[in-house]
Amino acid sequence: MFKIYHLANCTTCQRILKEIPNLKKFTLREIKSEPITAKELDAMKKLAGSYEALFSRRSMKYRPMGLHERTDVEVIALADPDAAMIARSQKTLANGGRKPAVVYGNGNEDYKNLLKRDDIDAVFICTPWEWHVPQGVAALEAGKFVGMEVCGGMNIQECWDIVHASERTGIPVMALENVCYRRDVLAVLNMVRQGLFGEVVHGQGGYLHDLRQVMLNSGKEDGYGDGVEFGPKGWSEAKWRTQHYVDRNGELYPTHGLGPVAVMMDINRGNRLTRLSSVASNARGLHKYIMEHPKGGPDHPNAKVQFKCGDIVNTQIQTANGQTILLTHDTTLQRPYNLGFRVQGTEGLWQDTGWGDLDQGMVYFEKQMDHSDRWDNSKSWMEQHDHPLWKRYGTMASGAGHGGMDYFVDHAFFECIKRDQPFPLDVYDLATWYAITPLSEKSIAEGGQVQDIPDFTAGKWQQRKPVFGFTDEY
Amino acid sequence: MFKIYHLANCTTCQRILKEIPNLKKFTLREIKSEPITAKELDAMKKLAGSYEALFSRRSMKYRPMGLHERTDVEVIALADPDAAMIARSQKTLANGGRKPAVVYGNGNEDYKNLLKRDDIDAVFICTPWEWHVPQGVAALEAGKFVGMEVCGGMNIQECWDIVHASERTGIPVMALENVCYRRDVLAVLNMVRQGLFGEVVHGQGGYLHDLRQVMLNSGKEDGYGDGVEFGPKGWSEAKWRTQHYVDRNGELYPTHGLGPVAVMMDINRGNRLTRLSSVASNARGLHKYIMEHPKGGPDHPNAKVQFKCGDIVNTQIQTANGQTILLTHDTTLQRPYNLGFRVQGTEGLWQDTGWGDLDQGMVYFEKQMDHSDRWDNSKSWMEQHDHPLWKRYGTMASGAGHGGMDYFVDHAFFECIKRDQPFPLDVYDLATWYAITPLSEKSIAEGGQVQDIPDFTAGKWQQRKPVFGFTDEY
Repeated sequence: MFKIYHLANCTTCQRILKEIPNLKKFTLREIKSEPITAKELDAMKKLAGSYEALFSRRSMKYRPMGLHERTDVEVIALADPDAAMIARSQKTLANGGRKPAVVYGNGNEDYKNLLKRDDIDAVFICTPWEWHVPQGVAALEAGKFVGMEVCGGMNIQECWDIVHASERTGIPVMALENVCYRRDVLAVLNMVRQGLFGEVVHGQGGYLHDLRQVMLNSGKEDGYGDGVEFGPKGWSEAKWRTQHYVDRNGELYPTHGLGPVAVMMDINRGNRLTRLSSVASNARGLHKYIMEHPKGGPDHPNAKVQFKCGDIVNTQIQTANGQTILLTHDTTLQRPYNLGFRVQGTEGLWQDTGWGDLDQGMVYFEKQMDHSDRWDNSKSWMEQHDHPLWKRYGTMASGAGHGGMDYFVDHAFFECIKRDQPFPLDVYDLATWYAITPLSEKSIAEGGQVQDIPDFTAGKWQQRKPVFGFTDEY
Repeated sequence: MFKIYHLANCTTCQRILKEIPNLKKFTLREIKSEPITAKELDAMKKLAGSYEALFSRRSMKYRPMGLHERTDVEVIALADPDAAMIARSQKTLANGGRKPAVVYGNGNEDYKNLLKRDDIDAVFICTPWEWHVPQGVAALEAGKFVGMEVCGGMNIQECWDIVHASERTGIPVMALENVCYRRDVLAVLNMVRQGLFGEVVHGQGGYLHDLRQVMLNSGKEDGYGDGVEFGPKGWSEAKWRTQHYVDRNGELYPTHGLGPVAVMMDINRGNRLTRLSSVASNARGLHKYIMEHPKGGPDHPNAKVQFKCGDIVNTQIQTANGQTILLTHDTTLQRPYNLGFRVQGTEGLWQDTGWGDLDQGMVYFEKQMDHSDRWDNSKSWMEQHDHPLWKRYGTMASGAGHGGMDYFVDHAFFECIKRDQPFPLDVYDLATWYAITPLSEKSIAEGGQVQDIPDFTAGKWQQRKPVFGFTDEY
């Protein structure tokens, strides 16, 4: 039987384990709880050829988002009421040879004290969704650049709030949509800009990711798959994310699917999103998971929870320039991971079928493909049209979070601040993308009624020029 | 260089040619215009081993829908104002050893004289879309069983008209939706009924088929790809289908994508379609085709035609039982053929990626697949769950039109009539599916506004039981 040594709290290990089919064929050995012995190490040395080959020089490169690796960034302070999460971040900093951050962990409002510091230029907001905009507005008012993690907005008002706060203070906000920097996505953007797709008429994307173990778990550290708890008894995102599925029925996580397509369609820069309508299927997945889990069952208190968010939520979006976009939110059923991208133009078509590897897609370009009427695998096309950013930084990014995407989105944030340049994904993009969520909720509540999408640029979209990803710099 | 001998007016040859990638590598030899010589035949005999092996015993099995092969069916009469089409049908009958049909070809209204005959039990209506319902109602009133080819309705009133005519006369109508009988579709239905998908929550389908050469051609017999004419100057469907794209913006051809999903969701039999909303992209494909074609260009009169139907039309449908369905109409851009099926349940997921071959899809069943989070190719699943109809009649169907589907849909029509059994796809299904088209047009015209879908069963859907495909008989 094959054996895998892994660290339970290492996200890279988690990612790699998730990529292995038939994991049950392997024996898993958690090396923190049961460390590797000298004898085992020698056995592995024999297999690998040297001791050195056993150690990745890229480990320790991860959280929080590689900040401890950049010589141009210092992590001054962390605000989180959750001591366990603070401890993990401090450990990452220590592993990177950085000094510990000052901690603001005294409840939910202590971040306000962090914002009073005058030795902080910028903040990342990666808190539960409901805190994004209040904390973002407070950070802008304290004069800090804001890098805002993605989610969907709580309501339309807060989308306006973050726009107005940025305009009032003159401080910019960057939407940290990492998938805009995925290697295949950037290669397709490159092809779109080089004209291979002709005129883009339709796009699709989504978040098709089985999150049942994230949303329901044991409550212990990394206790994924080991329980059906959420809220105070859950671990990590289950503490707060799951409640949104109890209370809300909508496209709860629009940006991974929408962001890349929006960039290709020049949304808020010569184009804009005008209307949407959404529909939601029955909500079956989370309840079924609780009912069938060994630690769940019909007598578990969570078996009585009524989840409101449909398993499949589809949203049709229209643009001012006449394109259509289809978004899918699919997070509570069994399925392989996929963001479901489709980019369709008058001369090209890309259909994404996997989790972002270059060969996990199909393309068709009739003029280059002898009118064959047959798909080609995407790999050679992606390689041939690799984006300048990946050509330049691909090696450096390859160890970073989410397959390298996180490197680029953070890099852009820092470089724009240092160079005093506008963020490539800005507060108008953030507000527009966030707005999809409350509008989808309203559409579903009204039986699928179409909703107008506000123009957060107040008409400026007609003059604004595309700025995302034109060079190899950021 | 390789050589292919083919008959230009043989649909099987057309289909096979379409399946060959890089067709340009082959020399095409049209054997009607340039017959095979004795010398060539001898050369081929050497390659094939015998003269016998050179001749398919399945040729001549095709149009009109294999009727000339059934000993229980006699083709009495044909009504068509187009003499060229009549000639082709008569030839097929002659090739099948049948006597010529009586012809009613004296203009558009001559079908009424056909309907006066008392030696006809049933009619197939496979005329231009706008004639389906008027001819269907007339046939019902003349006491003939009606097999109705698929399309979308012209308006909601005609959907009611065909329902009321069938109810008034007591004569049933069958919707000839052949894709409901596609081998992979029936295997998935089989799996759904066996519980492999758990509870079905979402379905997708569509008509993603590049029809540019069908809609714009030379006007000569089978002059596909050889011109940009339509209307009176076009060939076959270009004579009438293309005008719908000039006049209408909607989901013009809903049934291939919707029918199979509707059957799996028991629509009109314990469930029903309640609402839809549609969006359409810009219409670019047909104009671009005219502009770029060697026989087109900016000075061709058709370059001035404004096509109204968007290249991509998406429709979100809701059902009474809480499922969602997504339909796509995508016929005027370059793309490989695909009907885009997705069937998603609490325990299973099927994604169709090709043109119906059993290996052209991906499935995921976590319980049977060790929670691998990885797609499996569909082939072995389809074979293992092959539908009883295909097990029994697969060999017989394999030569029939559209990969065998046409055999089954016609077989069901004849067997139900002979056995005095209700059609498995009936007038309520026909009306419901046809209604998608005018409702999608209205939705698009209103910016995507949601539309109620009428209940053509007038409440009977709550009592009606599923009847489609439960045995190997029809």
